Amino acid sequence: MPKATDSKGKTLAAAAKLLRQRGYHGTALHDILAAGGSPRGSLYFHFPGGKEQIGEAALTLAGEAVRQGIARAAEASESAEVFLVRIVRGMAADLERSDYREGCPIATTALETSAQSEVLAAATRTAFQKWENEIKRGLERFGMTAEEADPFATIVLSQLEGALLLARTYRNPTPLHRAEQALKLLLTSSKS
Amino acid sequence: MPKATDSKGKTLAAAAKLLRQRGYHGTALHDILAAGGSPRGSLYFHFPGGKEQIGEAALTLAGEAVRQGIARAAEASESAEVFLVRIVRGMAADLERSDYREGCPIATTALETSAQSEVLAAATRTAFQKWENEIKRGLERFGMTAEEADPFATIVLSQLEGALLLARTYRNPTPLHRAEQALKLLLTSSKS
Repeated sequence: MPKATDSKGKTLAAAAKLLRQRGYHGTALHDILAAGGSPRGSLYFHFPGGKEQIGEAALTLAGEAVRQGIARAAEASESAEVFLVRIVRGMAADLERSDYREGCPIATTALETSAQSEVLAAATRTAFQKWENEIKRGLERFGMTAEEADPFATIVLSQLEGALLLARTYRNPTPLHRAEQALKLLLTSSKS
Repeated sequence: MPKATDSKGKTLAAAAKLLRQRGYHGTALHDILAAGGSPRGSLYFHFPGGKEQIGEAALTLAGEAVRQGIARAAEASESAEVFLVRIVRGMAADLERSDYREGCPIATTALETSAQSEVLAAATRTAFQKWENEIKRGLERFGMTAEEADPFATIVLSQLEGALLLARTYRNPTPLHRAEQALKLLLTSSKS
Protein backbone atom coordinates (compact mmCIF):
# COMPACT_ATOMS: atom_id res chain seq x y z
CA MET A 1 0.00 0.00 0.00
CA PRO A 2 1.54 3.41 -0.90
CA LYS A 3 2.31 5.71 2.05
CA ALA A 4 -0.19 8.52 2.28
CA THR A 5 0.92 11.90 3.53
CA ASP A 6 -2.35 13.83 3.37
CA SER A 7 -5.10 13.58 5.96
CA LYS A 8 -7.62 11.91 3.62
CA GLY A 9 -5.06 9.40 2.39
CA LYS A 10 -3.91 8.55 5.92
CA THR A 11 -7.49 7.96 7.01
CA LEU A 12 -8.10 5.61 4.08
CA ALA A 13 -4.85 3.70 4.58
CA ALA A 14 -5.69 3.25 8.28
CA ALA A 15 -9.25 2.17 7.45
CA ALA A 16 -8.05 -0.34 4.83
CA LYS A 17 -5.65 -1.91 7.35
CA LEU A 18 -8.35 -2.16 10.02
CA LEU A 19 -10.89 -3.66 7.61
CA ARG A 20 -8.28 -6.24 6.62
CA GLN A 21 -7.51 -7.19 10.21
CA ARG A 22 -10.94 -6.91 11.87
CA GLY A 23 -13.60 -6.55 9.18
CA TYR A 24 -16.22 -3.83 8.88
CA HIS A 25 -18.34 -4.32 11.98
CA GLY A 26 -15.25 -4.91 14.13
CA THR A 27 -13.84 -1.52 13.11
CA ALA A 28 -15.29 1.52 14.86
CA LEU A 29 -15.09 5.03 13.47
CA HIS A 30 -12.96 6.11 16.43
CA ASP A 31 -10.48 3.30 15.68
CA ILE A 32 -10.06 4.72 12.17
CA LEU A 33 -9.61 8.22 13.57
CA ALA A 34 -7.06 7.04 16.13
CA ALA A 35 -5.11 4.94 13.63
CA GLY A 36 -5.17 7.59 10.89
CA GLY A 37 -4.22 10.39 13.30
CA SER A 38 -6.67 12.81 11.70
CA PRO A 39 -8.95 15.19 13.57
CA ARG A 40 -12.63 14.25 13.60
CA GLY A 41 -13.56 17.42 11.73
CA SER A 42 -11.36 16.54 8.77
CA LEU A 43 -12.95 13.10 8.62
CA TYR A 44 -16.46 14.56 8.33
CA PHE A 45 -15.21 17.08 5.79
CA HIS A 46 -13.72 14.40 3.53
CA PHE A 47 -16.33 11.72 4.17
CA PRO A 48 -19.76 13.27 4.82
CA GLY A 49 -21.26 9.79 4.24
CA GLY A 50 -19.51 8.53 7.40
CA LYS A 51 -18.24 5.04 8.01
CA GLU A 52 -19.88 3.48 4.96
CA GLN A 53 -18.28 6.03 2.65
CA ILE A 54 -14.87 5.55 4.28
CA GLY A 55 -15.31 1.77 4.00
CA GLU A 56 -16.17 2.02 0.31
CA ALA A 57 -13.13 4.20 -0.45
CA ALA A 58 -10.81 2.04 1.69
CA LEU A 59 -11.98 -1.15 -0.08
CA THR A 60 -11.39 0.53 -3.44
CA LEU A 61 -7.89 1.58 -2.36
CA ALA A 62 -7.02 -1.89 -1.02
CA GLY A 63 -8.51 -3.60 -4.07
CA GLU A 64 -6.48 -1.42 -6.41
CA ALA A 65 -3.25 -2.13 -4.48
CA VAL A 66 -3.79 -5.88 -4.87
CA ARG A 67 -4.69 -5.49 -8.56
CA GLN A 68 -1.42 -3.62 -9.15
CA GLY A 69 0.45 -6.34 -7.25
CA ILE A 70 -1.03 -8.99 -9.57
CA ALA A 71 -0.08 -6.92 -12.64
CA ARG A 72 3.49 -6.51 -11.33
CA ALA A 73 3.72 -10.25 -10.61
CA ALA A 74 2.78 -10.96 -14.26
CA GLU A 75 5.36 -8.48 -15.57
CA ALA A 76 8.11 -9.98 -13.39
CA SER A 77 7.37 -13.58 -14.43
CA GLU A 78 8.48 -15.69 -17.37
CA SER A 79 5.66 -18.25 -17.27
CA ALA A 80 2.11 -18.71 -15.99
CA GLU A 81 3.43 -21.01 -13.28
CA VAL A 82 5.95 -18.48 -12.00
CA PHE A 83 3.24 -15.81 -12.11
CA LEU A 84 0.77 -17.79 -9.98
CA VAL A 85 3.43 -19.02 -7.56
CA ARG A 86 4.56 -15.43 -7.07
CA ILE A 87 1.02 -14.38 -6.10
CA VAL A 88 0.46 -17.21 -3.64
CA ARG A 89 3.88 -16.75 -2.02
CA GLY A 90 3.24 -13.03 -1.65
CA MET A 91 0.01 -13.81 0.20
CA ALA A 92 1.76 -16.31 2.47
CA ALA A 93 4.50 -13.77 3.24
CA ASP A 94 1.97 -11.04 4.15
CA LEU A 95 0.06 -13.44 6.37
CA GLU A 96 3.08 -14.79 8.23
CA ARG A 97 4.74 -11.37 8.58
CA SER A 98 1.57 -9.97 10.20
CA ASP A 99 1.24 -12.90 12.63
CA TYR A 100 -1.85 -14.08 10.71
CA ARG A 101 -3.65 -10.74 11.00
CA GLU A 102 -3.43 -9.68 7.38
CA GLY A 103 -5.16 -12.02 5.00
CA CYS A 104 -7.39 -10.86 2.16
CA PRO A 105 -8.22 -7.15 2.55
CA ILE A 106 -11.66 -7.62 0.97
CA ALA A 107 -13.04 -11.02 2.02
CA THR A 108 -14.09 -10.24 5.60
CA THR A 109 -16.09 -7.17 4.63
CA ALA A 110 -17.50 -8.95 1.57
CA LEU A 111 -18.97 -11.72 3.72
CA GLU A 112 -20.17 -9.36 6.45
CA THR A 113 -21.92 -6.89 4.19
CA SER A 114 -23.07 -8.87 1.14
CA ALA A 115 -26.68 -8.84 2.31
CA GLN A 116 -26.57 -5.62 4.32
CA SER A 117 -25.00 -2.75 2.41
CA GLU A 118 -25.30 -2.43 -1.35
CA VAL A 119 -22.54 0.22 -1.35
CA LEU A 120 -20.00 -1.99 0.42
CA ALA A 121 -21.11 -5.15 -1.39
CA ALA A 122 -20.55 -3.39 -4.72
CA ALA A 123 -17.07 -2.25 -3.65
CA THR A 124 -16.05 -5.79 -2.67
CA ARG A 125 -17.55 -7.22 -5.90
CA THR A 126 -15.59 -4.71 -7.99
CA ALA A 127 -12.33 -5.52 -6.19
CA PHE A 128 -12.66 -9.28 -6.77
CA GLN A 129 -13.69 -8.76 -10.40
CA LYS A 130 -10.66 -6.56 -11.05
CA TRP A 131 -8.38 -9.22 -9.57
CA GLU A 132 -9.98 -11.89 -11.74
CA ASN A 133 -9.48 -9.69 -14.80
CA GLU A 134 -5.87 -9.02 -13.90
CA ILE A 135 -5.18 -12.75 -13.37
CA LYS A 136 -6.89 -13.44 -16.71
CA ARG A 137 -4.71 -10.81 -18.41
CA GLY A 138 -1.60 -12.40 -16.90
CA LEU A 139 -2.61 -15.87 -18.09
CA GLU A 140 -3.23 -14.55 -21.60
CA ARG A 141 0.21 -12.97 -21.56
CA PHE A 142 1.64 -16.48 -21.12
CA GLY A 143 -0.34 -17.96 -24.00
CA MET A 144 -3.79 -18.91 -22.73
CA THR A 145 -6.68 -17.98 -24.97
CA ALA A 146 -9.28 -15.60 -23.52
CA GLU A 147 -11.77 -18.47 -23.55
CA GLU A 148 -9.47 -20.62 -21.39
CA ALA A 149 -8.19 -17.82 -19.17
CA ASP A 150 -11.63 -16.55 -18.15
CA PRO A 151 -12.79 -19.62 -16.14
CA PHE A 152 -9.22 -20.38 -15.11
CA ALA A 153 -8.86 -16.97 -13.45
CA THR A 154 -11.99 -17.61 -11.37
CA ILE A 155 -10.62 -21.00 -10.31
CA VAL A 156 -7.25 -19.46 -9.38
CA LEU A 157 -8.84 -16.70 -7.31
CA SER A 158 -11.15 -19.17 -5.55
CA GLN A 159 -8.20 -21.41 -4.67
CA LEU A 160 -6.20 -18.44 -3.37
CA GLU A 161 -9.06 -16.97 -1.34
CA GLY A 162 -10.03 -20.30 0.19
CA ALA A 163 -6.45 -21.18 1.08
CA LEU A 164 -5.92 -17.74 2.60
CA LEU A 165 -9.05 -18.18 4.72
CA LEU A 166 -7.93 -21.61 5.95
CA ALA A 167 -4.31 -20.53 6.55
CA ARG A 168 -5.47 -17.54 8.56
CA THR A 169 -7.91 -19.62 10.59
CA TYR A 170 -5.37 -22.39 11.23
CA ARG A 171 -2.57 -19.88 11.83
CA ASN A 172 -0.50 -22.11 9.56
CA PRO A 173 0.69 -21.55 5.96
CA THR A 174 0.12 -25.16 4.82
CA PRO A 175 -3.13 -24.44 2.91
CA LEU A 176 -1.25 -21.83 0.83
CA HIS A 177 1.58 -24.27 0.11
CA ARG A 178 -1.00 -26.80 -1.00
CA ALA A 179 -2.75 -24.15 -3.11
CA GLU A 180 0.55 -23.65 -4.91
CA GLN A 181 0.58 -27.36 -5.78
CA ALA A 182 -3.06 -27.19 -6.89
CA LEU A 183 -2.38 -24.27 -9.22
CA LYS A 184 0.58 -26.08 -10.78
CA LEU A 185 -1.53 -29.20 -11.33
CA LEU A 186 -4.35 -27.16 -12.85
CA LEU A 187 -1.95 -25.39 -15.21
CA THR A 188 -0.50 -28.71 -16.33
CA SER A 189 -3.94 -30.21 -16.92
CA SER A 190 -5.08 -27.09 -18.82
CA LYS A 191 -2.25 -27.70 -21.30
CA SER A 192 -3.17 -31.32 -21.98
CA MET B 1 -29.73 -28.36 10.40
CA PRO B 2 -32.03 -30.51 12.65
CA LYS B 3 -35.13 -28.78 14.04
CA ALA B 4 -34.69 -27.96 17.70
CA THR B 5 -37.66 -28.03 19.98
CA ASP B 6 -36.06 -27.06 23.28
CA SER B 7 -35.19 -23.50 24.26
CA LYS B 8 -31.42 -24.04 24.20
CA GLY B 9 -31.53 -25.78 20.85
CA LYS B 10 -33.75 -23.09 19.32
CA THR B 11 -31.39 -20.38 20.50
CA LEU B 12 -28.40 -22.16 18.98
CA ALA B 13 -30.15 -22.84 15.67
CA ALA B 14 -31.16 -19.18 15.46
CA ALA B 15 -27.64 -18.04 16.35
CA ALA B 16 -26.07 -20.35 13.75
CA LYS B 17 -28.36 -18.97 11.04
CA LEU B 18 -27.60 -15.36 12.00
CA LEU B 19 -23.82 -15.99 12.12
CA ARG B 20 -24.06 -17.52 8.67
CA GLN B 21 -25.98 -14.59 7.21
CA ARG B 22 -24.41 -11.62 9.05
CA GLY B 23 -21.30 -12.79 10.86
CA TYR B 24 -20.47 -12.39 14.54
CA HIS B 25 -20.22 -8.65 14.97
CA GLY B 26 -23.29 -8.07 12.80
CA THR B 27 -25.38 -10.29 15.08
CA ALA B 28 -26.59 -8.72 18.31
CA LEU B 29 -27.66 -10.72 21.33
CA HIS B 30 -31.20 -9.35 21.04
CA ASP B 31 -31.35 -10.58 17.41
CA ILE B 32 -30.57 -14.09 18.65
CA LEU B 33 -33.22 -13.78 21.38
CA ALA B 34 -35.81 -12.49 18.92
CA ALA B 35 -35.03 -15.14 16.29
CA GLY B 36 -34.87 -18.01 18.80
CA GLY B 37 -38.05 -16.95 20.58
CA SER B 38 -36.56 -17.68 23.99
CA PRO B 39 -36.92 -15.51 27.07
CA ARG B 40 -33.79 -13.58 28.09
CA GLY B 41 -33.63 -15.41 31.41
CA SER B 42 -33.37 -18.81 29.74
CA LEU B 43 -30.53 -17.50 27.57
CA TYR B 44 -28.48 -16.44 30.60
CA PHE B 45 -29.29 -19.72 32.30
CA HIS B 46 -28.04 -21.83 29.39
CA PHE B 47 -25.20 -19.53 28.36
CA PRO B 48 -23.71 -17.71 31.35
CA GLY B 49 -20.74 -16.80 29.12
CA GLY B 50 -23.02 -14.64 26.97
CA LYS B 51 -22.63 -13.99 23.27
CA GLU B 52 -19.20 -15.56 22.94
CA GLN B 53 -20.39 -18.81 24.50
CA ILE B 54 -23.50 -18.87 22.28
CA GLY B 55 -21.28 -18.15 19.27
CA GLU B 56 -18.94 -20.99 20.12
CA ALA B 57 -21.79 -23.48 20.56
CA ALA B 58 -23.56 -22.26 17.39
CA LEU B 59 -20.37 -22.63 15.32
CA THR B 60 -19.90 -26.14 16.70
CA LEU B 61 -23.49 -27.02 15.80
CA ALA B 62 -23.19 -25.57 12.28
CA GLY B 63 -19.80 -27.18 11.74
CA GLU B 64 -21.14 -30.58 12.77
CA ALA B 65 -24.15 -30.26 10.43
CA VAL B 66 -21.82 -29.61 7.47
CA ARG B 67 -19.53 -32.46 8.51
CA GLN B 68 -22.49 -34.84 8.53
CA GLY B 69 -23.55 -33.52 5.12
CA ILE B 70 -20.08 -34.33 3.72
CA ALA B 71 -20.22 -37.82 5.23
CA ARG B 72 -23.68 -38.42 3.73
CA ALA B 73 -22.47 -37.17 0.33
CA ALA B 74 -19.66 -39.74 0.42
CA GLU B 75 -22.04 -42.55 1.36
CA ALA B 76 -24.46 -41.64 -1.44
CA SER B 77 -21.73 -41.47 -4.12
CA GLU B 78 -20.11 -44.10 -6.31
CA SER B 79 -16.90 -42.20 -7.12
CA ALA B 80 -14.72 -39.37 -5.83
CA GLU B 81 -15.99 -37.17 -8.66
CA VAL B 82 -19.64 -37.74 -7.80
CA PHE B 83 -18.82 -37.12 -4.13
CA LEU B 84 -17.16 -33.74 -4.74
CA VAL B 85 -19.74 -32.63 -7.30
CA ARG B 86 -22.47 -33.45 -4.79
CA ILE B 87 -20.84 -31.19 -2.18
CA VAL B 88 -20.34 -28.23 -4.51
CA ARG B 89 -23.88 -28.49 -5.92
CA GLY B 90 -25.30 -28.63 -2.41
CA MET B 91 -23.49 -25.38 -1.59
CA ALA B 92 -24.75 -23.73 -4.77
CA ALA B 93 -28.31 -24.83 -4.01
CA ASP B 94 -28.18 -23.42 -0.45
CA LEU B 95 -26.76 -20.14 -1.71
CA GLU B 96 -29.29 -19.64 -4.48
CA ARG B 97 -32.25 -20.79 -2.39
CA SER B 98 -31.39 -18.22 0.29
CA ASP B 99 -30.99 -15.38 -2.23
CA TYR B 100 -27.22 -15.37 -1.59
CA ARG B 101 -27.59 -14.97 2.18
CA GLU B 102 -26.43 -18.41 3.22
CA GLY B 103 -22.89 -19.19 2.21
CA CYS B 104 -20.38 -20.86 4.50
CA PRO B 105 -21.67 -20.91 8.11
CA ILE B 106 -18.14 -20.58 9.51
CA ALA B 107 -16.07 -18.35 7.19
CA THR B 108 -17.44 -14.94 8.15
CA THR B 109 -16.91 -15.46 11.87
CA ALA B 110 -13.53 -17.12 11.22
CA LEU B 111 -12.25 -14.02 9.42
CA GLU B 112 -13.80 -11.58 11.88
CA THR B 113 -12.53 -13.21 15.03
CA SER B 114 -9.27 -14.94 14.10
CA ALA B 115 -7.20 -12.26 15.84
CA GLN B 116 -9.76 -11.22 18.43
CA SER B 117 -11.29 -14.17 20.27
CA GLU B 118 -9.35 -17.36 20.93
CA VAL B 119 -12.60 -19.15 21.85
CA LEU B 120 -14.33 -18.34 18.55
CA ALA B 121 -11.16 -18.76 16.49
CA ALA B 122 -10.73 -22.25 17.97
CA ALA B 123 -14.34 -23.17 17.16
CA THR B 124 -13.94 -22.07 13.51
CA ARG B 125 -10.59 -23.90 13.24
CA THR B 126 -12.15 -27.10 14.57
CA ALA B 127 -15.06 -26.88 12.12
CA PHE B 128 -12.79 -26.49 9.08
CA GLN B 129 -10.48 -29.26 10.28
CA LYS B 130 -13.39 -31.65 10.72
CA TRP B 131 -14.57 -30.88 7.18
CA GLU B 132 -11.09 -31.49 5.81
CA ASN B 133 -10.95 -34.81 7.66
CA GLU B 134 -14.37 -35.83 6.38
CA ILE B 135 -13.40 -34.94 2.79
CA LYS B 136 -10.19 -36.91 3.26
CA ARG B 137 -12.13 -39.91 4.54
CA GLY B 138 -14.45 -39.71 1.52
CA LEU B 139 -11.51 -39.59 -0.89
CA GLU B 140 -9.92 -42.60 0.80
CA ARG B 141 -13.20 -44.47 0.44
CA PHE B 142 -12.84 -44.04 -3.34
CA GLY B 143 -9.30 -45.33 -3.45
CA MET B 144 -6.94 -42.46 -2.64
CA THR B 145 -4.12 -43.25 -0.23
CA ALA B 146 -4.03 -41.28 3.02
CA GLU B 147 -0.88 -39.57 1.77
CA GLU B 148 -2.65 -38.33 -1.38
CA ALA B 149 -5.97 -37.57 0.28
CA ASP B 150 -4.53 -35.36 3.01
CA PRO B 151 -3.27 -32.46 0.80
CA PHE B 152 -6.06 -33.07 -1.70
CA ALA B 153 -8.72 -32.49 0.96
CA THR B 154 -7.16 -29.11 1.83
CA ILE B 155 -7.14 -28.15 -1.85
CA VAL B 156 -10.79 -29.21 -2.24
CA LEU B 157 -11.92 -27.23 0.80
CA SER B 158 -9.95 -24.15 -0.32
CA GLN B 159 -11.53 -24.33 -3.77
CA LEU B 160 -15.01 -24.70 -2.27
CA GLU B 161 -14.59 -21.92 0.29
CA GLY B 162 -13.11 -19.47 -2.21
CA ALA B 163 -15.78 -20.18 -4.80
CA LEU B 164 -18.52 -19.80 -2.20
CA LEU B 165 -17.07 -16.42 -1.16
CA LEU B 166 -16.93 -15.19 -4.76
CA ALA B 167 -20.37 -16.56 -5.67
CA ARG B 168 -21.89 -14.89 -2.64
CA THR B 169 -20.16 -11.58 -3.36
CA TYR B 170 -21.07 -11.65 -7.07
CA ARG B 171 -24.59 -12.93 -6.33
CA ASN B 172 -23.95 -15.41 -9.13
CA PRO B 173 -23.29 -19.17 -9.01
CA THR B 174 -20.63 -19.17 -11.77
CA PRO B 175 -17.62 -19.48 -9.40
CA LEU B 176 -19.18 -22.66 -7.94
CA HIS B 177 -19.78 -24.11 -11.42
CA ARG B 178 -16.15 -23.37 -12.25
CA ALA B 179 -15.03 -24.91 -8.95
CA GLU B 180 -16.80 -28.09 -10.04
CA GLN B 181 -14.69 -28.12 -13.21
CA ALA B 182 -11.53 -27.44 -11.19
CA LEU B 183 -12.22 -30.34 -8.83
CA LYS B 184 -12.80 -32.70 -11.78
CA LEU B 185 -9.53 -31.58 -13.39
CA LEU B 186 -7.64 -32.02 -10.12
CA LEU B 187 -9.07 -35.50 -9.63
CA THR B 188 -8.03 -36.48 -13.15
CA SER B 189 -4.52 -35.12 -12.70
CA SER B 190 -4.17 -36.85 -9.31
CA LYS B 191 -4.76 -40.19 -11.09
CA SER B 192 -2.09 -39.62 -13.75
